[in-house]
Amino acid sequence: MREKNVAIAGATGAVGTEMIKVLEDLNFPVKNLRLLASERSVGKKLKFKNEEIPVEKLDKDSFKNIDIALFSAGASRSLEFAKYAVDAGAVVIDNSSAFRMNDDVPLVVPEVNPEKVKEHKGIIANPNCSTIQMVVALYPIHKVAKIKRIIVSTYQAVSGTGMKAIEELKRQIEQIRNNEKVTCEVYPHQIAYNVLPHVDVFLENGYTKEEMKMVNETRKIMNDYSIQVTATTVRVPVIRAHSESINIELEKKLTANEVREILSKAPGIIVQDEPSKNIYPLAIYATGKYETFVGRIREDISVKNGIAMWVVADQLLKGAAYNAVQIAQLLL
Amino acid sequence: MREKNVAIAGATGAVGTEMIKVLEDLNFPVKNLRLLASERSVGKKLKFKNEEIPVEKLDKDSFKNIDIALFSAGASRSLEFAKYAVDAGAVVIDNSSAFRMNDDVPLVVPEVNPEKVKEHKGIIANPNCSTIQMVVALYPIHKVAKIKRIIVSTYQAVSGTGMKAIEELKRQIEQIRNNEKVTCEVYPHQIAYNVLPHVDVFLENGYTKEEMKMVNETRKIMNDYSIQVTATTVRVPVIRAHSESINIELEKKLTANEVREILSKAPGIIVQDEPSKNIYPLAIYATGKYETFVGRIREDISVKNGIAMWVVADQLLKGAAYNAVQIAQLLL
Repeated sequence: MREKNVAIAGATGAVGTEMIKVLEDLNFPVKNLRLLASERSVGKKLKFKNEEIPVEKLDKDSFKNIDIALFSAGASRSLEFAKYAVDAGAVVIDNSSAFRMNDDVPLVVPEVNPEKVKEHKGIIANPNCSTIQMVVALYPIHKVAKIKRIIVSTYQAVSGTGMKAIEELKRQIEQIRNNEKVTCEVYPHQIAYNVLPHVDVFLENGYTKEEMKMVNETRKIMNDYSIQVTATTVRVPVIRAHSESINIELEKKLTANEVREILSKAPGIIVQDEPSKNIYPLAIYATGKYETFVGRIREDISVKNGIAMWVVADQLLKGAAYNAVQIAQLLL
Repeated sequence: MREKNVAIAGATGAVGTEMIKVLEDLNFPVKNLRLLASERSVGKKLKFKNEEIPVEKLDKDSFKNIDIALFSAGASRSLEFAKYAVDAGAVVIDNSSAFRMNDDVPLVVPEVNPEKVKEHKGIIANPNCSTIQMVVALYPIHKVAKIKRIIVSTYQAVSGTGMKAIEELKRQIEQIRNNEKVTCEVYPHQIAYNVLPHVDVFLENGYTKEEMKMVNETRKIMNDYSIQVTATTVRVPVIRAHSESINIELEKKLTANEVREILSKAPGIIVQDEPSKNIYPLAIYATGKYETFVGRIREDISVKNGIAMWVVADQLLKGAAYNAVQIAQLLL
């Protein structure tokens, strides 16, 4: 029997609702779909194929007969409930940061390290959104010319913070339009008409947790701890899709054309790189797409064997829901 | 006689109008102020102190008796008209890119190389906005520990493109709000809720002209052609003030605290760097200010002697009008 009983924990969130759509869109062989969320969403119904599925409360007993449990309800829920799913015999694909750096938890991007799925002991972690699109774009280059160092600055959409952040951006735009006082509930400062060099919490070393995810997860996924990474992660007033300005230093020289050729043959990537025609990846066009878009590929004039590029992907899809369902497909 | 006759070419533009305000705000010793613009602005009146000054047409004969001519009417107007101002005996302070890289034209940021003003032969160039705030922040570090390489990604406000771009962003926000078709007149793609990795025109090497300005002008201003620079310049839906994510590599190690100390004593800089209190430079707060704001200072974990930082300034003021008037003050 190839059909699976699938549960989504956090089904009403920004990523959870995308997971439902992706399961349907990819025609994932779902026998039964169980939608789980916190108490206050119980009673809601969400559409999957032609069914209206009621949202149930996420609790210890939610995972009976479940084969695959997709978690996207935040790290604390994952830490609390993933074990019940595993105990019930399900494989957990967890979108939170809870287990990503655990040695016995594979951290998987199917275009990069699909073979790691087999090593799971009940939990497979879905990487951070900013990291996923970066490694999709960089791994094909790494295989050919070995990346020594990555410098990345991000331009991250508010939907990465969740539904409430989309509402906050829209509310602030309206408040400014109406000359009203701007109120901040989700972010510490106004995000409308502004950019915030602050994603996730600050750590001792001056980096944010989001920045250190990009450092540590990249090394784990590419399975090369010699790669040096630095990141500056920035929130921008974009609804959806993260953009990244990336500079890499390679062991071996590659021309911009060679990089374009490598990436155009690589899985999950669309090269959009005709600047003279104003063609380069853009957040508004990547929205709703599964692929990672790469452009502005050029030889970095400031360093030997350097390449600069611009990488964009829908962080709710390739950065979360789609990557999770891809992992589920590998489990079939 | 210390009072000067001042002309502003491009007086009705985004930078020109700021020049008028800065002359007034700094109490620059203006004897007469002549406001020059293209034909279609003739008849307008602009306020300076308690006067209403009529806008005159910029032409060959506009500069009689002028001591200082501030140009901000685009490179082609500067190329056409600056010579008439010089012939009439004025010193031209030109905000365009027309003369910046000419060997006999000083390119001046008063916090960095004020002594160059003396070398002028009639024209002094005001650097590119993104470059000015970067060198203000980096030069004090360079003096102490010598910068070997700069990697910068920018988050540039639409007012850098001019008044029409502010209108375009606001119009697109309204169009999206009203579910109307988004129209693009200034930028090749929608800027509302989007980011464009495209500032100025593309060059042969894959960089944009704006990016190469940051490379070449930085070396000229800091008077060190051994500094390697790479830039990715990006337009964001911010009205005013450019933000920059900068990674530098130094000859000599500096701790983050040492950098903070150096910068807090440096001219024209305000260090805003208490991440645990959500204090870091922000475009909306830098708007209307003359200083360059620096924060998120941390040791770059990916390289020996590296520092990462976040630099924000009002690109119409420190990046243009204020820097130009500072140069004029040096001429007094």
